Amino acid sequence: MSEAQDESNWDNRYATRSSRMQASEIRELLKLLDQPDIISFAGGIPDPHLFAAEDMRNAYSDVLSKNANAALQYSTSEGYEPLRHWLTDYMSKIGVKCTPDNIMIVSGSQQALDYCGKLFLSPNDTALVTRPAYLGALQAFNAYEAHYDFISPESGNRTPQSYKDEAAKAGGRPKFAYLTPDFANPTGDTISREARMKLLALADELDIVVLEDSAYQGLRYSGEHVPPIISLDLERNGGDIEKIRTLYSGSFSKTVTPGLRLGWICGPKEVIRKLVLIKQAADLHTPTINQMVMYQVVSNIFDKQVDKIRKAYHHRRDQMLAALEKYMPASASWTKPEGGMFIWLTVKEGLDSKELLAKSLETERVAFVPGKAFFADGSGANTMRLSYSLASDEEIDQGIMRLARLIKSYE
Amino acid sequence: MSEAQDESNWDNRYATRSSRMQASEIRELLKLLDQPDIISFAGGIPDPHLFAAEDMRNAYSDVLSKNANAALQYSTSEGYEPLRHWLTDYMSKIGVKCTPDNIMIVSGSQQALDYCGKLFLSPNDTALVTRPAYLGALQAFNAYEAHYDFISPESGNRTPQSYKDEAAKAGGRPKFAYLTPDFANPTGDTISREARMKLLALADELDIVVLEDSAYQGLRYSGEHVPPIISLDLERNGGDIEKIRTLYSGSFSKTVTPGLRLGWICGPKEVIRKLVLIKQAADLHTPTINQMVMYQVVSNIFDKQVDKIRKAYHHRRDQMLAALEKYMPASASWTKPEGGMFIWLTVKEGLDSKELLAKSLETERVAFVPGKAFFADGSGANTMRLSYSLASDEEIDQGIMRLARLIKSYE
Repeated sequence: MSEAQDESNWDNRYATRSSRMQASEIRELLKLLDQPDIISFAGGIPDPHLFAAEDMRNAYSDVLSKNANAALQYSTSEGYEPLRHWLTDYMSKIGVKCTPDNIMIVSGSQQALDYCGKLFLSPNDTALVTRPAYLGALQAFNAYEAHYDFISPESGNRTPQSYKDEAAKAGGRPKFAYLTPDFANPTGDTISREARMKLLALADELDIVVLEDSAYQGLRYSGEHVPPIISLDLERNGGDIEKIRTLYSGSFSKTVTPGLRLGWICGPKEVIRKLVLIKQAADLHTPTINQMVMYQVVSNIFDKQVDKIRKAYHHRRDQMLAALEKYMPASASWTKPEGGMFIWLTVKEGLDSKELLAKSLETERVAFVPGKAFFADGSGANTMRLSYSLASDEEIDQGIMRLARLIKSYE
Repeated sequence: MSEAQDESNWDNRYATRSSRMQASEIRELLKLLDQPDIISFAGGIPDPHLFAAEDMRNAYSDVLSKNANAALQYSTSEGYEPLRHWLTDYMSKIGVKCTPDNIMIVSGSQQALDYCGKLFLSPNDTALVTRPAYLGALQAFNAYEAHYDFISPESGNRTPQSYKDEAAKAGGRPKFAYLTPDFANPTGDTISREARMKLLALADELDIVVLEDSAYQGLRYSGEHVPPIISLDLERNGGDIEKIRTLYSGSFSKTVTPGLRLGWICGPKEVIRKLVLIKQAADLHTPTINQMVMYQVVSNIFDKQVDKIRKAYHHRRDQMLAALEKYMPASASWTKPEGGMFIWLTVKEGLDSKELLAKSLETERVAFVPGKAFFADGSGANTMRLSYSLASDEEIDQGIMRLARLIKSYE
């Protein structure tokens, strides 16, 4: 039975909502890349050698020695109170005064995106996104049959009326603007303070929510700190978090570990309460034991852990930027990220990075992610995402050299 | 700001999909019951003293000593392969031959219900449910704006045409029949083999999916094993799982521990693949470490653990049935469950168990769950759910005595 027949059987017979899911051809592709002789800049996953495995092990042991009954039992949908309390301290350090009622624990920040889709999007409503945007966000919003329109925070957004008109044409209204303002996945770019303020002003005009995905925010290696959008929103609202329109989604995946699936959403109590109801009906709560362990681990070693990770990725970023400088032809350009895990490479117009990838795997044995997948409008064929989080100095130098050789062969 | 104003602010201002969530007044109520002098039959949660805490602790330690890099890293949406493989053995023991491709790991079986809602339900589609049904299932399906119609597997369903007509009237079509065939939450009832076959025949006529929630299936204390619906469906399809219409949702919450949030869905590959795409966009995957730990724990002690739990709850069920017999007036009747955690008490017509609960908390200090919440049509005012999973012999005797005294006072 072919895949096409197959799809039609379940789709027609049981009338499943196939619009609610989307195969990620990129992720499927990446599965094929687990071959040892391939230099992979594709992943975008943390280096497991940087995990605080020993501290984790001690924390699990501790929690299960002292508090097994609670750790293994059902718990509340909003999350483990001490962890939420710790997060109020964390948020306060980045300029956001809040209480545990402003915070809900989620099973990784992907879940925050799913729940925000569920809360805000009716079919054909518009999500404003950047071009490119985080692929997982597009997948999450697609499940709620989102229409997309595009913001360009740095180079200038369109008029509010034009966004309203386009959304109405699509059969809905604009519901939120989603972006990763710091060291974005996939570009590595950081949005300036001015652009953040302009985005808030646009959101005011449209009366929509700003969904700030801060997955990489803790990983700055150079340049000046830019305040999170939520803190800027708070500032212009006299510090009253109940009045803001920004929802902040945070993650422990990049700083501590992704395997525990732990993130959080911070925002006005009112919306957190709604998200808690959504979570209750969706998976009851995030695993109790993991929340207790994360609380213990971050209480003990968070700053030290983040320092260690910053230092390692900082070095790798510098190595990759140097290699790009050294090997790439003049027709190629790339971002100079101040943090995060990614560099975004643009090759000359007309080249298709998906074809380049196929060729690269065949002849150069170098993997990356073609950029097109990150564009909700299907553009971006001549772009690609390079991740330096997992590569050694030698792999970076070798891999970029080979990739440049391939790109030059099309000159 | 009052709750009502509050709701309208976010609902109107940001046009959130308030239809996608539903506050559970019962769960809110239960939060108020954590007072030490109250005898609670309300919970329906496992006794934490029966958790295999020591085995869990050893497993976390082992996994993090030997395999930390994998345990703390991202993993695949379908779940940890060795655990899925172990589950094929488990399923085979209950009459279901399948491969790991027929199994997806979920973060608790509540998530299976959420994903099935997401996969099947368009707004106003009909879910066929029992009356009463598991509250969490209704909450999960409500999020997808389900309409409900009612099956009565034991006493007789309506004609297929009548279900189709009602669904069309509601603006959709019947999409699945959901039920907990063994020791149901909330009634404790088990559906006979004949009724299971009739339900499958009805599903054939309607060409819909059967969603078998088996959360309590492992906890039989007496009576004869009844084959799971999925195994009956498989049997009539010559053992070819790709041809069946039943999806089976299983859980480790009642047998091992709920705190790790681990369950699974078993069904045709084709639908599992769709559910994997849904999971990928919703939370990427269930925590890696918990899956690895559960695999180790169930490989070592599953049968022993289930025996221990069965023995404890078996005793408590007998104690509660004896106390009901001893104290309740002739106007009350109750189920005699052969397993699970619940007894369903029906008091005389006209009594409202929500009012009884308020009175009971005030004068008798006994808690239970009023039955009405479990009825998608708002009936069942004179019913209540009693759980014996957490109560000691003395609490059961005392609590039922006091509850009977209260009920008698209305005679």
